[in-house]
Amino acid sequence: MWKVILKKGMEGATVRNIAQEAGLSLGALRHYFPNQDELIVYAMDLVQEKVTKRIRTKSEGDFSPKEMVMNVLLDIVPINEEQLIETEVWFAFMAHVKHRKDELPIPEDGVFTVVQQTIHFLDTHGLLKPGLDIDMEIERLYALVDGIAIHALLDPNRLSKKRVIKTIEYHLDSICVDPL
Amino acid sequence: MWKVILKKGMEGATVRNIAQEAGLSLGALRHYFPNQDELIVYAMDLVQEKVTKRIRTKSEGDFSPKEMVMNVLLDIVPINEEQLIETEVWFAFMAHVKHRKDELPIPEDGVFTVVQQTIHFLDTHGLLKPGLDIDMEIERLYALVDGIAIHALLDPNRLSKKRVIKTIEYHLDSICVDPL
Repeated sequence: MWKVILKKGMEGATVRNIAQEAGLSLGALRHYFPNQDELIVYAMDLVQEKVTKRIRTKSEGDFSPKEMVMNVLLDIVPINEEQLIETEVWFAFMAHVKHRKDELPIPEDGVFTVVQQTIHFLDTHGLLKPGLDIDMEIERLYALVDGIAIHALLDPNRLSKKRVIKTIEYHLDSICVDPL
Repeated sequence: MWKVILKKGMEGATVRNIAQEAGLSLGALRHYFPNQDELIVYAMDLVQEKVTKRIRTKSEGDFSPKEMVMNVLLDIVPINEEQLIETEVWFAFMAHVKHRKDELPIPEDGVFTVVQQTIHFLDTHGLLKPGLDIDMEIERLYALVDGIAIHALLDPNRLSKKRVIKTIEYHLDSICVDPL
């Protein structure tokens, strides 16, 4: 489904086209996914699961809090081919289902959850500068991460991997006590 | 063209469909826009021109530097129906042309220019806190503004107009000397 979306956009991501791409019979795929909606919800859950699993793996090990936070944030921005594809597919899904949230069991945006946990983690460990507004720091980091994702997706030549990392580090330094 | 994009997505925004929506003959529209590419570039220029004109109008008048900066930034985030439509159409264009930048005369992203000017304006007026990295502040505000735009577009119930304004003010306060 991802491949089809990247090639033809959401409009082209029909059960028929996906069956063809996967080398399955239309009947076989329809047995599990009667229409595009079921496929979309399943595929969105898969993106989330994939990212969550990657983050869990990367958080194991002996890291300083700052390394931990950087690892997690760098797992959700498009700094490699795999994450570029996830980001592109996720935004395509979100744009496609945005008027149908009441109707479809769309998963929560995992990026928001990760950002919330990140800020609370820094707060709990006493690493945030005094006087910050936690709620606003979550909103700000959430916008920052997805803004970076969109820019890296649309213009990877301007916003290189190196610059993505530099920007996130700069932001973390601006909200954290020194030395982190 | 905007109406057609909002209804049918970029794939549906053919010269034929747009002629129909506008009540023009296909031949008449083809005379000016032989294919979709010409239409896209023209329509992207129009979005830019519209926003630039609105910003120019709003910057006239007797405002404090902070009011001026807020006015300008609030002109480029989707806090009303008109700006929601511009944002949606602009992202649809950007996603559509992203692999063809060498080929088509795509206008620069006006949001980046506005953000650059904003940070330089604050810097020139001595309003930025000491020790900030101007280049990083531009990157950060650019990501913040477009991240907010995407979130307000995809989930306007969560990210209300009030919360958009609060977040931008919070960010400006964090980088500006007090009182602005």
